[in-house]
Amino acid sequence: MARKKILVDGNEAAASVAHRANEVIAIYPITPSSPMGEHSDAWSSAGQKNVWGIVPDVTEMQSEGGAAGAVHGALQAGALTTTFTASQGLLLMIPNLYKIAGELTAAVFHIAARTIATHALSIFGDHSDVYACRQTGWGMLASNSVQEVHDFALIAQAASLESRIPFLHFFDGFRTSHEVAKIEQLTDDDIRHMITDEMVSAHRSRALTPDRPVLRGSAQNPDAFFQAREAVSPFYRACPGAVIAAMEKFGALTGRHYELFQYHGAPDADRVIIAMGSGCEAIHNTVDMLNAQGQKTGVLKVRLYRPFSAEHFLAALPATVRTLAVLDRTKEPGGPGEPMYMDVVTTLNEARAAGNSPLADDLVIIGGRYGLSSKEFNPAMIQGIYAEMSQDTPRNHFTIGINDDVSGTSLDYDADLDFEDDDVVRAVFFGLGSDGTVGANKNSIKIIGDGTDNHAQGYFVYDSKKAGAVTISHLRFGPRTLRTPYLIRKANFVACHQWTFLDQFEMLDKLMPGGTFLLNSPFGAADVWDKLPLEVQNGLIEKKAKFHVIDAVKVARESGMGGRINTVMQTCFFAISGVLPRDEAIAAIKHAIEKTYGKKGEKVVQMNYAAVDASLANLHEVTVPDAVTSDRVRPPVVADEAPDHVKQVAAMMLAGNGDLLPVSAFTPDGTWPTGTAKWEKRNIAQEIPVWEEELCIQCNKCAFVCPHAAIRAKVYDPEHLEGSPETFKSLDYTAPDFKGAKYTIQVAPEDCTGCDLCVQVCPGKDRENPERKALFMHEQMPLRDTEPENWDFFLSLPDPDRTKLRTNVKGTQFLEPLFEFSGACPGCG
Amino acid sequence: MARKKILVDGNEAAASVAHRANEVIAIYPITPSSPMGEHSDAWSSAGQKNVWGIVPDVTEMQSEGGAAGAVHGALQAGALTTTFTASQGLLLMIPNLYKIAGELTAAVFHIAARTIATHALSIFGDHSDVYACRQTGWGMLASNSVQEVHDFALIAQAASLESRIPFLHFFDGFRTSHEVAKIEQLTDDDIRHMITDEMVSAHRSRALTPDRPVLRGSAQNPDAFFQAREAVSPFYRACPGAVIAAMEKFGALTGRHYELFQYHGAPDADRVIIAMGSGCEAIHNTVDMLNAQGQKTGVLKVRLYRPFSAEHFLAALPATVRTLAVLDRTKEPGGPGEPMYMDVVTTLNEARAAGNSPLADDLVIIGGRYGLSSKEFNPAMIQGIYAEMSQDTPRNHFTIGINDDVSGTSLDYDADLDFEDDDVVRAVFFGLGSDGTVGANKNSIKIIGDGTDNHAQGYFVYDSKKAGAVTISHLRFGPRTLRTPYLIRKANFVACHQWTFLDQFEMLDKLMPGGTFLLNSPFGAADVWDKLPLEVQNGLIEKKAKFHVIDAVKVARESGMGGRINTVMQTCFFAISGVLPRDEAIAAIKHAIEKTYGKKGEKVVQMNYAAVDASLANLHEVTVPDAVTSDRVRPPVVADEAPDHVKQVAAMMLAGNGDLLPVSAFTPDGTWPTGTAKWEKRNIAQEIPVWEEELCIQCNKCAFVCPHAAIRAKVYDPEHLEGSPETFKSLDYTAPDFKGAKYTIQVAPEDCTGCDLCVQVCPGKDRENPERKALFMHEQMPLRDTEPENWDFFLSLPDPDRTKLRTNVKGTQFLEPLFEFSGACPGCG
Repeated sequence: MARKKILVDGNEAAASVAHRANEVIAIYPITPSSPMGEHSDAWSSAGQKNVWGIVPDVTEMQSEGGAAGAVHGALQAGALTTTFTASQGLLLMIPNLYKIAGELTAAVFHIAARTIATHALSIFGDHSDVYACRQTGWGMLASNSVQEVHDFALIAQAASLESRIPFLHFFDGFRTSHEVAKIEQLTDDDIRHMITDEMVSAHRSRALTPDRPVLRGSAQNPDAFFQAREAVSPFYRACPGAVIAAMEKFGALTGRHYELFQYHGAPDADRVIIAMGSGCEAIHNTVDMLNAQGQKTGVLKVRLYRPFSAEHFLAALPATVRTLAVLDRTKEPGGPGEPMYMDVVTTLNEARAAGNSPLADDLVIIGGRYGLSSKEFNPAMIQGIYAEMSQDTPRNHFTIGINDDVSGTSLDYDADLDFEDDDVVRAVFFGLGSDGTVGANKNSIKIIGDGTDNHAQGYFVYDSKKAGAVTISHLRFGPRTLRTPYLIRKANFVACHQWTFLDQFEMLDKLMPGGTFLLNSPFGAADVWDKLPLEVQNGLIEKKAKFHVIDAVKVARESGMGGRINTVMQTCFFAISGVLPRDEAIAAIKHAIEKTYGKKGEKVVQMNYAAVDASLANLHEVTVPDAVTSDRVRPPVVADEAPDHVKQVAAMMLAGNGDLLPVSAFTPDGTWPTGTAKWEKRNIAQEIPVWEEELCIQCNKCAFVCPHAAIRAKVYDPEHLEGSPETFKSLDYTAPDFKGAKYTIQVAPEDCTGCDLCVQVCPGKDRENPERKALFMHEQMPLRDTEPENWDFFLSLPDPDRTKLRTNVKGTQFLEPLFEFSGACPGCG
Repeated sequence: MARKKILVDGNEAAASVAHRANEVIAIYPITPSSPMGEHSDAWSSAGQKNVWGIVPDVTEMQSEGGAAGAVHGALQAGALTTTFTASQGLLLMIPNLYKIAGELTAAVFHIAARTIATHALSIFGDHSDVYACRQTGWGMLASNSVQEVHDFALIAQAASLESRIPFLHFFDGFRTSHEVAKIEQLTDDDIRHMITDEMVSAHRSRALTPDRPVLRGSAQNPDAFFQAREAVSPFYRACPGAVIAAMEKFGALTGRHYELFQYHGAPDADRVIIAMGSGCEAIHNTVDMLNAQGQKTGVLKVRLYRPFSAEHFLAALPATVRTLAVLDRTKEPGGPGEPMYMDVVTTLNEARAAGNSPLADDLVIIGGRYGLSSKEFNPAMIQGIYAEMSQDTPRNHFTIGINDDVSGTSLDYDADLDFEDDDVVRAVFFGLGSDGTVGANKNSIKIIGDGTDNHAQGYFVYDSKKAGAVTISHLRFGPRTLRTPYLIRKANFVACHQWTFLDQFEMLDKLMPGGTFLLNSPFGAADVWDKLPLEVQNGLIEKKAKFHVIDAVKVARESGMGGRINTVMQTCFFAISGVLPRDEAIAAIKHAIEKTYGKKGEKVVQMNYAAVDASLANLHEVTVPDAVTSDRVRPPVVADEAPDHVKQVAAMMLAGNGDLLPVSAFTPDGTWPTGTAKWEKRNIAQEIPVWEEELCIQCNKCAFVCPHAAIRAKVYDPEHLEGSPETFKSLDYTAPDFKGAKYTIQVAPEDCTGCDLCVQVCPGKDRENPERKALFMHEQMPLRDTEPENWDFFLSLPDPDRTKLRTNVKGTQFLEPLFEFSGACPGCG
């Protein structure tokens, strides 16, 4: 039976099973698990039924505590019930977790595992949240990839119903929850096959009902509680067997065979890494590459973390292993070690003491931390771990992937090392959040995934500033399962969707020698070279890059698409990346356009077709000269005048190089200086407001509404106008105070995001021509060429941190106004 | 400097320091930690100041989540801040625990460690709650006795301020939080000496303030979070040193010397138990006794559980040890072992691997669970563990103190074994909840504690039914520190404060041969013997007991004390127990009376004096005959007609023998049959309502308000009256429906608690004599002699579980009424 291939992310993969296999879903969405709840809500709203023909009842509660309570109640009423959560949300569920497990209630919660906030909050992924529940008596099943999320969502539910142990089914937040991959979809029949009517009936029979009244939630005293608590033990002993049975049944059904502890690597490995979650895929990949070089390495993927079956754990390890490294994606300060490391040490120590360990008595076991808050975990780091394991006395309690210059825990590794298979196409796209790049890339993956037998993977690195910040898309296509849950280091294709990024990011670092660089440029093939900063010219020459440009903004506008450049850039990608034959690719794009826009009428479809054709017509290859010509170097990330901390820490992070910061760069308690945001000049506005002073009524609304405080209205002494540029605009101040003062509205172009709220609220209109307003949006491209003299001359910054700051990024001197009007966040400067 | 000796329980010992050493206290009281919050609130309400002259700001929040949030906020504002909690309350604080620790904020939370609800709720003590926080980055410091609670409350705060690691300071809920002991009180100077102005200034300097603005609570991304998180490590490495420094400073100050890991026992011990909390005291005591017998045992008391200092742990163990047993007061099903066991295995395995373990390589380490939900943990059990440790292959993952006939985990031990020093006076009192017994006993401890150099200990075993249920007081007095955090098995003195208990509890089991038994009896010395159940006569003869009786109810009433028998029984205790010379004791009681009641005027004082004198006059010794004479055996705990589960499980628990129930007696998921409460005939009412039918207006209010549904109003066919007893009362039913029916109000005396709510609401009055009401309270003593024929004849039970039950405890047949009125909880039967 051929199952459908679908292109989904981890959240949708989990929700797809959870929604079809449950009756009640109580949610309180939290990043990065939110899409599971949102999908479920949307599906139920649309009347989508579960495999038993019932539309699941999806209810949003007031907090995760409420969601857990509602789930507990629904379970006690006999409903198949689930929820989705992460991080603090999961922590709020802990009291109910104990109750649900204590009452042996079958349920699966799907967790997009996320960092718990400590010195700082983080929305990204690690295992600190699920580890905080390891003592609750829940089963814990880890998925390592999008396909596994889909599969284990079902296996967990079958095993839970069979064993009566509830399960946390977890996968890495963002890295897996938000990775888009082509997977095989489980059918409704698959779900019904795994979750039998007998299981459901047994669950129902345990419900509280007046027809068979029993009491739960009683209170017990010292005389009885301990014995009653021990009565649960046989269920935990039996649980691994139930999971194995579910995995075997699933394997027979789908051909995908899973084990509690799944070993991959040399049968006679001397070094084995033990891990959970997406990192296992990276280790799997690295093991294959190292073993191909003649090394003897292996990885033990822990799938069933709780109950931890010592028997199956011991049986899964090759007897030849001399060194084990246990990786924990968490930090539990003050403990003797991280959790899984202690589990493994305990299990092996007991086996050794009992004389039934299959491993050498002088086996070395080390533990390490990795990947906190979605910190990159890639083959270079993994090779570093295996190299350390070859040492006589390898470092224990290590960290990998960072430079811990404070405690010296971090292992060295060759950061430049990159393993990728030659037949995997890798493309990296630099887009602006909300500019459509991510959507277009998902569409591209779909086209390639559907049109070929290729496996496809998309991962999107969002800046937490979300809209208006850079979003980097990492796309891979290849003939085999893509075990690459890490960023692309060297791509065949790099696209820059925003001209201003040239000044901000080292995009060509990510390009393979001979690879293709696509640039959305306001300058044509003939002119663009000289407009490039020196660093970009150098990069193109060094990489011997194929360099293409398109004025996507112009093509989009002229094709009637307004500012939406995604179809244009997508067309160019297909045209020059070679991932599909060009004609086939263009046909597929047009087919996708028809599918997407068909309902909106032939006109819209034709407009998009035209955009595709215009894109191809306007896409030009630029011949890269042999030598640089530019005299313009990339501007510093922050001004020289910035405080040391901003220059040394914030600037690194703004430039995308935060990973290089050592531990010592950070305060130990998460304290951060204030007023740093003003040093980040984002330059993301395509259009900025221009002041038409003759229409201005001096109401100051524009300054008040600006969310980034980028518009300032100032009242000042006329003497300050001395020496002002020709173009500098001013009015007589009209209010009765400060007679004789002057008034100016100014915009800080680098801080403005181009949202146009100021223009919307501006009441200053030309009565003759109501289209004319005192403020209007005007294109500025390239940005720094917009009336620089005005801007340099007079903009004054507020003084939120009381340091009497008087210089901005360009070092210009500013005048002190009598006073100024400003709304919004004063910290944004 | 002589410090004051005070008599306090663990909660007050903690609160006494916490209130004096903090400025902000946010609370949401939860059993058994509530008194800490309540004391603090009362003290602040009374204007009591902390050691810096400020009245701490005590605020009750809406939940423990709110309390933790308020604490977090106050700490960030630079206030010395604390809270008190336990169990689910602590779980709700977990998200804030991560934040407070992540931000390196000095604070101490005082935890009366309590069971987390699983298959059932329990208000009693174990370490499942604090273990659920071991991963949060908080320091964890365990106190083992009331004195240690007092001391460590201060040491923890000093260490936290010094190290910036926040601390959970925990002690065993109930066993320590509610144990009353004579301790040395820390002075305000002690607190100021330990918490220096420099520490407070440093804490203040880390506050968020606009004067030195910094930002906390930021969001970090994958580029920075991991490194920033690792920056905290040096603080955890330094923390044990800060605790040692605080302990040493404290030791120099008070002479009480504590260590992170405190070893007690043979310097060349072959067996060492490792534990935390009150159990350590019991082990300490047992070690002394075993070693006195020539054994070589030891105990390692873990005080600083987090950060777990491997260095100090290894240094504390004798090199001679061959077997270690790690005891965890929790159960974490599904894990490879309980938490501290894994910590110890990990630490020793690392030392062995590094070649720096001071211990033998073939050291045996086992782990066990004990004391869940305040399950008794006494020397008999501890000797059982040491005996098991002498085996060649001692059982791992054992349980002790229960009979686990399901999984076979439990160790055998000689339950009859009892170690007590001969010079420790032990007294056990059976009182009724709310009858003043506990208060009087606390007062007795104070008298003895104040009047002598003796150490004193009081522990009160409350039934969770609270008011109206049995409360057993366990009092010890002795010349040395009392390391006896377990119940008295053999007492010098046993008092029964309620006659009805003779039919319910095996009190004489707790009496030493030759000990004294004091009975509050409505029968005098001449008559009482024949009124005793056969079992009690047997017990008195076998124990060669000294037997005293007093009609305390009569004495109290005649002395003007109403129903309050506590002063009477206390006087008798002092008169015959020999704990103090009789005259001295009586003088001390009178002194205490003057102190307590002096403000209420001379009359009250004299009334109490009179009660003391009357008590002595009415206290009579009964000569115990050589042979039994009674033909009355104790009635069965529940009726023969009760369902099997009630007879086999509930009845054991009702009789106080729940500890003997094996694991198999309990369902694994906490499910319990309904309708069992009706089989528990508590017989606790001293007076029950009597129906004066001629005044009844048939309003049925009495039946509606009865909280135990012990009053029933029935309408029935007159034919049912056939064969009714002479004394059976009935009326014509007056409402228009059911013409010709009869109406009767009946009371179930064994279910009635004597609360008299029914009498309070009864509107049926005699117009001539308003004192006469349709319901009035009337003494019934002994209970079962009250109009038994009426009661047996006609009482019908409701049918909450739909089993058409038609028999009650005495097996009488009942008639079915046409309908009946009843209020309150129908399950109480």
